[in-house]
Amino acid sequence: MTYPLPLFTRIDHVGIAVRDLEEAIGWYETTYGLHVASRETNESQGVHEAMLVVAAPQGEDPGGSYVQLLEPLREDSPVGKFLARNGPGVHHIGYGVVNVTEALATISGTGVRLVDERPRHGSMGASIAFLHPKDTGGVLTELVQAVPPA
Amino acid sequence: MTYPLPLFTRIDHVGIAVRDLEEAIGWYETTYGLHVASRETNESQGVHEAMLVVAAPQGEDPGGSYVQLLEPLREDSPVGKFLARNGPGVHHIGYGVVNVTEALATISGTGVRLVDERPRHGSMGASIAFLHPKDTGGVLTELVQAVPPA
Repeated sequence: MTYPLPLFTRIDHVGIAVRDLEEAIGWYETTYGLHVASRETNESQGVHEAMLVVAAPQGEDPGGSYVQLLEPLREDSPVGKFLARNGPGVHHIGYGVVNVTEALATISGTGVRLVDERPRHGSMGASIAFLHPKDTGGVLTELVQAVPPA
Repeated sequence: MTYPLPLFTRIDHVGIAVRDLEEAIGWYETTYGLHVASRETNESQGVHEAMLVVAAPQGEDPGGSYVQLLEPLREDSPVGKFLARNGPGVHHIGYGVVNVTEALATISGTGVRLVDERPRHGSMGASIAFLHPKDTGGVLTELVQAVPPA
């Protein structure tokens, strides 16, 4: 393994399942004073989502720290099923990495199964991949390689 | 309310319930290359715990970002009950604040009920307080005012 340890540069985001995205955004704005950095609809993941800034990018790391609010587009989507089973709450954790392809290879090499064998596009243009929660102590875990500002 | 918004300076930690602290620490060290910054036993909370560094403190903020692993001392402790109900996984989220007393007053003023009406001592000497998850969209939420280095 040549990938430098530790793998993580930051807690990129906390992914939170909500029933109503607009209502949840309003609550986070009013209660904590957080601001929306990005709104997206991800059809393949079946979510409307918003990223709210907790900490802006610092130094050389192009990634910041966010609250990610996730409203399912469909009941049979992963977040829809999560809500039906658990109600609203923390759905997953995203950690920042320098190179998601190399980080995936390193983690896979320890025996952890991957939800995404190859990185795909995530929020705010990032390259992301999920690890399998059955191999990560029950924590659905996402790796996030942020995109440098244009 | 004179407390400056946004309230949060960082994602301080992800609190994760585990059945075996030593085994979990070993897994986080081996898989992700994280290092233990602190181990503590908190009798009043009924946990053995460890803080593993994801991002060291930067700039003027004395707080960093951590994975907090929590093993219950007793089955009838909050984390013990969580494990019995949900199994291992994310138990709570801690956000960094500049002044926990003022942040609590601001949040309480919006109608959110507090688990801790006044701050108490948390991991690594921090002043912390929990908000009630029934008022925070199902996310057990902790505010963390980190202690400047001595």
